[in-house]
Amino acid sequence: MVLKDNEFEMQHQITYYECDPKGYLTLGMLINLAVLASGSQSEALEIGEAAVKEVGGGWVITSYDIFVDHFPKIGEQVLLGTRATSYNKYFAFREFWVKDLAGNELAHINGVFVFMDMATRKMVRIPDEVIYPYHSAPVKRIPRLHRPDEIQTEEAVTQKQYQVRYFDIDANLHVNNAHYFDWMLDALDADFLKTHTLTKMSIKYEREVRYGDLVTSQVTPAISSDQGQVMTKHQILVNQELHAQANCWWNENA
Amino acid sequence: MVLKDNEFEMQHQITYYECDPKGYLTLGMLINLAVLASGSQSEALEIGEAAVKEVGGGWVITSYDIFVDHFPKIGEQVLLGTRATSYNKYFAFREFWVKDLAGNELAHINGVFVFMDMATRKMVRIPDEVIYPYHSAPVKRIPRLHRPDEIQTEEAVTQKQYQVRYFDIDANLHVNNAHYFDWMLDALDADFLKTHTLTKMSIKYEREVRYGDLVTSQVTPAISSDQGQVMTKHQILVNQELHAQANCWWNENA
Repeated sequence: MVLKDNEFEMQHQITYYECDPKGYLTLGMLINLAVLASGSQSEALEIGEAAVKEVGGGWVITSYDIFVDHFPKIGEQVLLGTRATSYNKYFAFREFWVKDLAGNELAHINGVFVFMDMATRKMVRIPDEVIYPYHSAPVKRIPRLHRPDEIQTEEAVTQKQYQVRYFDIDANLHVNNAHYFDWMLDALDADFLKTHTLTKMSIKYEREVRYGDLVTSQVTPAISSDQGQVMTKHQILVNQELHAQANCWWNENA
Repeated sequence: MVLKDNEFEMQHQITYYECDPKGYLTLGMLINLAVLASGSQSEALEIGEAAVKEVGGGWVITSYDIFVDHFPKIGEQVLLGTRATSYNKYFAFREFWVKDLAGNELAHINGVFVFMDMATRKMVRIPDEVIYPYHSAPVKRIPRLHRPDEIQTEEAVTQKQYQVRYFDIDANLHVNNAHYFDWMLDALDADFLKTHTLTKMSIKYEREVRYGDLVTSQVTPAISSDQGQVMTKHQILVNQELHAQANCWWNENA
């Protein structure tokens, strides 16, 4: 439902196929649900994909900061929310959240989007007609997201490879962004994934991955970070070229 | 909601992340939604996973026959239904359907399940307490599903390989069955998938695929079948050993 002004919330029940082996929502599905909320807001405001396509372009994500207090469990009812917070000439800043029905925030995501001209495949000034309906605040500068600490060439990494599949492509004809999270996290040991829970992630998309690409997902060993957490650095390469990079922060499970 | 006797239906809106590049529900997600309905029925009857685990076992799918009139589209509201149709000593026969809100059936799935003892990993007689709550009909013989026509050793195949990922495992600690469909269909050319729509599929599960397995998905070239359709034969191998096989029937898109 459309809330005041620039906000939107919808209820969702977490299904078993959105969950990991421990029954918690996966990170990839968290992003799918966030994007589902913003897509529903756009449809409600009649500025959905079809309308945006008529303008000759499309929204493209550049980066996310993801904060997780805890992941909802299989069967849980949650509220998926989003706010078209602010924008300037080239960048739109949007927030997403997942709350339990008592109103406690379980996860919060900040994202920065740009608008791409579909003909030239170049970033263009955000057209007025695709941003006005959201009642987002025009600002000089949008908030800066965390810039992921890059993997240095001398750092040891482990890696896995993934062929991009036909069903990785969504109705936008792009690789669904959620798959980047599966590739990045699956490169970690199963033992690490079983014993750690993600609390924060910063991801920056550099180039688009396409159908048939052979993706290399690299990850550094976990190093100590603040407050008893460990941090991993991730990158997605195609033909040795950087396509996305991220940092993840983890708590060891009690 | 629990319908008469042995039936259950729930409403669901098709999301963008459940759809293929053309905006139609994927086959893998169709199976996820079917299993979601039967899981919800089981929870409603208080014979869900936890209760079944207490008996020391679990339900295992052996085969599905899938009939698709047409796949629902992104954003569409559908009814997911299931019926615990009949059972005998060792086999339980269950039906699933997807209907539009006007009551037209879009897809129908027949499935045969067995009960596995978790300690011995062997099939056992279905315990009374896990089947009674469904009001399923006790019968001598359950309906037979189609037995897929096997790929012969002399037949030409094309193949792709997939490493089983951590997030392919669901809360049952098994590879989610939906992934078999992604592996099987992704082995086909993107051009074929773009120009054809699945109308029928018979799949038989032989052995369990596990985390870390390297799956080989083989498919034969499409051959002509009845009523202007084409048919493809599929198999899933791990270490050259057959783990699942299927036949798919396709209509060429108009």
